[in-house]
Amino acid sequence: MDVAEQNRFKKAAAEAAAALVQDGMIVGLGTGSTAALFVEALSLRLAADRLRIKGIPTSRNTEDLARSLGIPLGSFAEDAQIDLAVDGADEIERGTVCLIKGHGGALLREKIVAAASRRMVVIADETKLVDRLGSLVAVPVEVVQFGWQATAGRLAKIGGNPSLRFGKDGVPYLTDGGNFIIDCAFGPIGDPKEVAHRLDHIVGVIEHGLFLGYASEAIVAGRDGVKTFRRSEN
Amino acid sequence: MDVAEQNRFKKAAAEAAAALVQDGMIVGLGTGSTAALFVEALSLRLAADRLRIKGIPTSRNTEDLARSLGIPLGSFAEDAQIDLAVDGADEIERGTVCLIKGHGGALLREKIVAAASRRMVVIADETKLVDRLGSLVAVPVEVVQFGWQATAGRLAKIGGNPSLRFGKDGVPYLTDGGNFIIDCAFGPIGDPKEVAHRLDHIVGVIEHGLFLGYASEAIVAGRDGVKTFRRSEN
Repeated sequence: MDVAEQNRFKKAAAEAAAALVQDGMIVGLGTGSTAALFVEALSLRLAADRLRIKGIPTSRNTEDLARSLGIPLGSFAEDAQIDLAVDGADEIERGTVCLIKGHGGALLREKIVAAASRRMVVIADETKLVDRLGSLVAVPVEVVQFGWQATAGRLAKIGGNPSLRFGKDGVPYLTDGGNFIIDCAFGPIGDPKEVAHRLDHIVGVIEHGLFLGYASEAIVAGRDGVKTFRRSEN
Repeated sequence: MDVAEQNRFKKAAAEAAAALVQDGMIVGLGTGSTAALFVEALSLRLAADRLRIKGIPTSRNTEDLARSLGIPLGSFAEDAQIDLAVDGADEIERGTVCLIKGHGGALLREKIVAAASRRMVVIADETKLVDRLGSLVAVPVEVVQFGWQATAGRLAKIGGNPSLRFGKDGVPYLTDGGNFIIDCAFGPIGDPKEVAHRLDHIVGVIEHGLFLGYASEAIVAGRDGVKTFRRSEN
């Protein structure tokens, strides 16, 4: 799959998600290349169907994009309950619709918005589908700068093969919250709940990119068209 | 107990802890009024006994104090393993030496330093001793600013009676890391591990003031003198 084709798939998934938005909704706006296509599709839909909604952006980049497209933005203070959050993902596990997110560096706000949403829909091209989380990408872990070396040591002990993420400028990447990201290459993860549990308990870890039980459905576009995967009850 | 008497007790505990410091140690320096007395006692001890140590401060305030007293400071990059951390506490549970900390607003760095220490000694006057954590004070919880209202809602659901901490200037208190503090008045806590577990899993919570299993001993001063309480094995 070349980049142009992949972008067409991302756009198809984004447009399908934009069709879910209804008048009066509070909508969580994700971060990353696929989420940006959703924000664009949403702005077209608002204009075409004269919908009034409020968006809650998950990053400064998304906030800037939404503003530039004229999407009205709300705040958590007024709109703590979000009706629908739409976001991309780095990996989507078939069946569970569990995710790895955070390669865009916005996992903390993305998770806060996902947790505050009645419904979370993840959108992606088909290259993101996996049978087991951790097969393709590392799990990004947002950590406090202070003492990050000790935190990395603890991540190594639980098999995380940690590496501090650097920016293009050669200095450690900083999140919108001013924290570092340590990418943890666990490899295919047999028990994501157990790994999430361990990460939650490590001092210095603010949040991690395992999104378990947040998304109820995934809209995935590929050569066979646009498909919706729902979380199977278990 | 009046304030002058309480200060004498704090100072006695601080001096007893300073006596534990040995040449060549990396020493974690806590935050708060009792920890400040330890930093002062430590500086006197370094001068009197010509000890060479490195201090790792848990806040900007402590860093400033330590510098002003001429205590050499190390960094986590070079000194990830701390030999001895000394810090105050808001409550100390008899028997377990479990703590509530964070009323000084530095709980995150304090916990990171405690977690990286071979030995943590807590120092206090006897008013801090309790039979059950939560009897006297609320549990401070450091939270991400973004979406703090939703986080407060989740803290309410687990019985935290949350209240956002404000500074003297009437605006929300900001930690050294730029986060908010939500004080959670649980009342006496029957199962601190369970509460800590729930707090660890709430999205938007960075860290909390329940320090369980960190301190191996408490040096507590009061009308009957200075006593050391050790963690009872269980």
